[in-house]
Amino acid sequence: MKALIKISYLGTDYCGYQVQPNGVSIQQKLNEAARAVFGFDCDIVGCSRTDSGVHANAFCATVAKKGQSNLPTAIPAERLPLAMSAYLPQDICVFAADWVEDGFHARYDVKEKEYIYRFYNRTVRSPFEENRSAHIPKPISDDALQEMNRASAKLCGTHDFAAYMAQGSSVKSTVRTVTRCDVRREGDVIIFRISANGFLYNMVRILAGTLLAVGQGKLRADDIDKITESRDRTLAGSTMPACGLYLNRVIY
Amino acid sequence: MKALIKISYLGTDYCGYQVQPNGVSIQQKLNEAARAVFGFDCDIVGCSRTDSGVHANAFCATVAKKGQSNLPTAIPAERLPLAMSAYLPQDICVFAADWVEDGFHARYDVKEKEYIYRFYNRTVRSPFEENRSAHIPKPISDDALQEMNRASAKLCGTHDFAAYMAQGSSVKSTVRTVTRCDVRREGDVIIFRISANGFLYNMVRILAGTLLAVGQGKLRADDIDKITESRDRTLAGSTMPACGLYLNRVIY
Repeated sequence: MKALIKISYLGTDYCGYQVQPNGVSIQQKLNEAARAVFGFDCDIVGCSRTDSGVHANAFCATVAKKGQSNLPTAIPAERLPLAMSAYLPQDICVFAADWVEDGFHARYDVKEKEYIYRFYNRTVRSPFEENRSAHIPKPISDDALQEMNRASAKLCGTHDFAAYMAQGSSVKSTVRTVTRCDVRREGDVIIFRISANGFLYNMVRILAGTLLAVGQGKLRADDIDKITESRDRTLAGSTMPACGLYLNRVIY
Repeated sequence: MKALIKISYLGTDYCGYQVQPNGVSIQQKLNEAARAVFGFDCDIVGCSRTDSGVHANAFCATVAKKGQSNLPTAIPAERLPLAMSAYLPQDICVFAADWVEDGFHARYDVKEKEYIYRFYNRTVRSPFEENRSAHIPKPISDDALQEMNRASAKLCGTHDFAAYMAQGSSVKSTVRTVTRCDVRREGDVIIFRISANGFLYNMVRILAGTLLAVGQGKLRADDIDKITESRDRTLAGSTMPACGLYLNRVIY
């Protein structure tokens, strides 16, 4: 058995989830904490690679002894969150843990992931939202929000999402299945939520930019189908900044 | 006429609202922004003096030309928030502004102020709550929350709050009128809210500590009256850390 841990982090000060030659990564901090707790080096496998500045409400990762497929420890799973968090900086924490089979894979066994993208929609920025949302000064009306939701609905289902993938990426298939996609307002924040069986590189940030263009009247909900069908990145909206993006949920 | 501005700030990196010989204050940053916007030195009078690390959702202050009781400018009030915010660091912003009479005083004319105190109540801390709440790992049950609310109710009305004032402070009267006082849960956060015609030094942080002691079963709601009557600081709860405190609203 190995441990499956749930982690939340504020990604602002990190070069992303994955260990990089330059910059401090979330994974590196988890490695250091795991070594401190278990007394040996570990292999930590994450559910995805979040970019620099992207946050996580519930990132998942497995912890096994380095080079092995299990985690030999007497520490009960329910103690792991506090034990590991004690060795993590304030902007990363482990908040849940459980045991999984040796063969479990944190990335390949993902059935569905959910991301949210936060827009802060007020004329003046907020000190409390710095690095936690994209600031959209011009008011988005309720009608515009409804239009964004009509656009979101058109993204649901199985589509080729090539138009919403960063140029230069290479994957075998650009077809993904979106199981949920909607936009809601919470006070001054507009939250775009999307669940899918997988995401292309920058897909959520490009979709956020596309829906924002709809909310700002630059695109209409009815344009979405033809953008999707075009497979043409240049027809979709711009890539929104990393700071508004949160990995919200992972389902195995 | 002078300007009455509404400000929000994350107080973490400041020595408090008021200019201090050592440390950077909110007021200093406002002074710098006002000079940049209006082209002359200004007198900025705040509605209160928040301590180091305390935040504000809606702090109020007046802006007048230095040594005068008015603000000679052609900038319309509705432009002031963006104009001043442009010269403020990311953790401070002006989000509203209006004109008030020369004789208006930002501190003496306050009719009522509202503070909130945020407790983060989950076993493991949250990266998103660092410096924004007090972390209370042990769960506070709904019954305990109700008991906290019974205690809050006993604080409403006109009382001598000497028991809830930092020792060593000197004021003419320790009598204040609390117009609203309650505790509610929002997800993992417990929010204590209190409105009054005035507050003694550290009063909200000491009341927060006293209500927390009730929530943790160290005190009962029925103890509140005798603590208040005692005027004895040592009978009340501990002073909670500044990072959970927010000036939430000011009424003139």
